[in-house]
Amino acid sequence: MVNGKVLIYGGRGALGASCVQFFKSNNWWVGCIDLTENDSADVNIVVDRDADWVSQEQNVLSKVEATLNGDKLDAVICVAGGWAGGNAKKDLAKNSDLMWKQSVWSSTISATVAANHLMSGGLLVLTGANPALNGTPGMIGYGMAKAAVHQLTKSLSEEDSGLPENSFVVSILPITLDTPMNRKWMPTADFGTWTPLDFVAGLFLKWTKGEERPANGSLVKLVTKDAKTELVIAD
Amino acid sequence: MVNGKVLIYGGRGALGASCVQFFKSNNWWVGCIDLTENDSADVNIVVDRDADWVSQEQNVLSKVEATLNGDKLDAVICVAGGWAGGNAKKDLAKNSDLMWKQSVWSSTISATVAANHLMSGGLLVLTGANPALNGTPGMIGYGMAKAAVHQLTKSLSEEDSGLPENSFVVSILPITLDTPMNRKWMPTADFGTWTPLDFVAGLFLKWTKGEERPANGSLVKLVTKDAKTELVIAD
Repeated sequence: MVNGKVLIYGGRGALGASCVQFFKSNNWWVGCIDLTENDSADVNIVVDRDADWVSQEQNVLSKVEATLNGDKLDAVICVAGGWAGGNAKKDLAKNSDLMWKQSVWSSTISATVAANHLMSGGLLVLTGANPALNGTPGMIGYGMAKAAVHQLTKSLSEEDSGLPENSFVVSILPITLDTPMNRKWMPTADFGTWTPLDFVAGLFLKWTKGEERPANGSLVKLVTKDAKTELVIAD
Repeated sequence: MVNGKVLIYGGRGALGASCVQFFKSNNWWVGCIDLTENDSADVNIVVDRDADWVSQEQNVLSKVEATLNGDKLDAVICVAGGWAGGNAKKDLAKNSDLMWKQSVWSSTISATVAANHLMSGGLLVLTGANPALNGTPGMIGYGMAKAAVHQLTKSLSEEDSGLPENSFVVSILPITLDTPMNRKWMPTADFGTWTPLDFVAGLFLKWTKGEERPANGSLVKLVTKDAKTELVIAD
């Protein structure tokens, strides 16, 4: 017997793969949604990168439905995303389009999966970004996409959002995650200010089990200092 | 001699057409960008509804460049947009996609036009929405798109956004505009709480001339009571 069922959207990314591993090692059934498969997951739903938003949504929804076969999910965790810089002078449409696909498509599809398959009281996690709480002139497309995710989080936490009764929706706003890629590209940084992936995965497990949940709709900053991470709720 | 040059993105909509008319009657050169032509404008740039974001941007940019032939714009005013309801349960991708195209594509293309063709100290207006300052569970796609426009406004008002020196960017957040369609669909409403289109066009003219500008990056709510409109800056 497993403890329950969770879906990780972006389960092939650094944080996502860490979540898949963490939940698996705690005896949960884990489904992975991503552009490629994660062999550690119980089930993989592969998204066609070239399909449009509506097709991706329909494709993921129908595969989740077939997989669950009437069962409900304890949690839908969306940690898909990406980053692109750039201001208004050049390539704004191109950069914004990419950011929208990576962060917002994945978030809305997660929301619709949650609306249709989450259990009452279940968890939906989205991934925002601390800088997008303000202007982001050097990464305009990124900021817009993450601001949209923040507002989506608020919408989903309110009545008649379509999510099941008592569900709990939250966005994490990581500052810097301690990933292999970040270590590779910033080898001289103070890793003690980076948030360990296992901390985040552990947080998701607690929230899935209904423990230590902040207010519904919260934007939760992950602030790490001296290798210790504090949760700070954004205003 | 004209007083100067303005571009109205969405110049065929109710508010946009009113702006075209108003600037024309005050002796300004007016370019209209929309899906169809506005005969009152000096120049029309027609956007291909079926083209993707990057193609629309390139198409508009190259036509603006050809039209201006080295001249600079006093203002770029984006009043394009639309509305769709709907929560997370059904058609979220479809509704969000439409909202994104109508509000965000037009806003980012306006930003890029402004970055490349606005004069120093020029005006860029975008169109946000009051409800998107909070969650919008019954119109999730709409709220996300407008929240993105709000954050874009902040980004563009900051240093190194790509806009020319001393440019002024602002979003208006209308509550209800006094349009023929709104009168048709809400015939028994109190029109004294609706904002007249000419008031908005007049506001844009003042801002274009550098008069009564609020802080750069402001989200300006248009609050109308007893047929009198007050500007309230959102936090």
